[in-house]
Amino acid sequence: MKSFRRELWFEIPQRRRLVNITGQVEEALRESGVSEGLCLANAMHISASVFVNDDEGGLHADFERWLEKLAPEKPHSQYQHNRGEDNADAHLKRTIMGREAVATVTAGKLDLGPWEQIFYGEFDGMRRKRVLVKIIGE
Amino acid sequence: MKSFRRELWFEIPQRRRLVNITGQVEEALRESGVSEGLCLANAMHISASVFVNDDEGGLHADFERWLEKLAPEKPHSQYQHNRGEDNADAHLKRTIMGREAVATVTAGKLDLGPWEQIFYGEFDGMRRKRVLVKIIGE
Amino acid sequence: MKSFRRELWFEIPQRRRLVNITGQVEEALRESGVSEGLCLANAMHISASVFVNDDEGGLHADFERWLEKLAPEKPHSQYQHNRGEDNADAHLKRTIMGREAVATVTAGKLDLGPWEQIFYGEFDGMRRKRVLVKIIGE
Repeated sequence: MKSFRRELWFEIPQRRRLVNITGQVEEALRESGVSEGLCLANAMHISASVFVNDDEGGLHADFERWLEKLAPEKPHSQYQHNRGEDNADAHLKRTIMGREAVATVTAGKLDLGPWEQIFYGEFDGMRRKRVLVKIIGE
Repeated sequence: MKSFRRELWFEIPQRRRLVNITGQVEEALRESGVSEGLCLANAMHISASVFVNDDEGGLHADFERWLEKLAPEKPHSQYQHNRGEDNADAHLKRTIMGREAVATVTAGKLDLGPWEQIFYGEFDGMRRKRVLVKIIGE
Repeated sequence: MKSFRRELWFEIPQRRRLVNITGQVEEALRESGVSEGLCLANAMHISASVFVNDDEGGLHADFERWLEKLAPEKPHSQYQHNRGEDNADAHLKRTIMGREAVATVTAGKLDLGPWEQIFYGEFDGMRRKRVLVKIIGE
């Protein structure tokens, strides 16, 4: 069994942004030499997400508005976590978007559907944060 | 290490429906010959879901009403994604329900709890769409 | 390939509670002898969750209030599932929080970010329920 580990680092200059990381995960897969197996990508931070969806700007604007409706950032005082912190909403937003994606590796490639793209979802940016990519297989 | 791949195809005649696919995943597992490992089932489309829950009609009606409350289909004009598209709500609904389920394989069987059933959740039907099942192990 | 299976049992004396199970998952990992691979932890019940977030009491209070806003328990009569049952809201809450977490195993340890902790989320307690931990690798 082969095993490969890669960290992807981010420092997003705003509080929130969605970043397409499909190319970086594919590059890790090429380096891994794995041709059949599973590839896990997860945020290593609890106010960020890895998820799969469409790379379309209108949809990303819809996600921003929708997440603000379901888990609004302000007023900060509405959250008990926000004593010394101000990112409770980021924990909730990431819960909706999910922590991780598991993708299949087939014939040396990420086995994604035609519109599936892997994203890093930052909900509390302006600091260095990481995604972990782990690939196991043969 | 063994590796097995199967696509399940659907063409749901309505916009939304939940389909129990546990039997089809179990059949793939039997064909795989894997007795210990992991089984990933994921929607290959970003407006559909694979998730685990109860096969109970009242609950499914509750899911429908609840998802329409959290991410309503109409009016289409409320979403920026809906220029030429009308399925932004399906992307949001699938985000809540999740893209994928990872199940354990133990002694050649899906190692599910007593009420756990695997579902395909269609949120933008009336077209051919797929679920990917990948099983790895020994 | 090594494979290790462990059930964690719970009987929570209230309807809802979040329990940090990181230590129990780490203990299973030590017993498994796996040094490189994947670790899946999933609720075996469809009204409970396994998820990753922060072990901070204010945030847990925020989760409770937020889940009650998005999927309120009462009135029970608002849900079609609640005929003979009263736990439809628990199915919805668990859907938001997620069924499972997949963690990476690196050098014999759970490869978690600095604040990542694994939780069992009970949303319909006062009965015996289980989490399944499965570890595969080498």
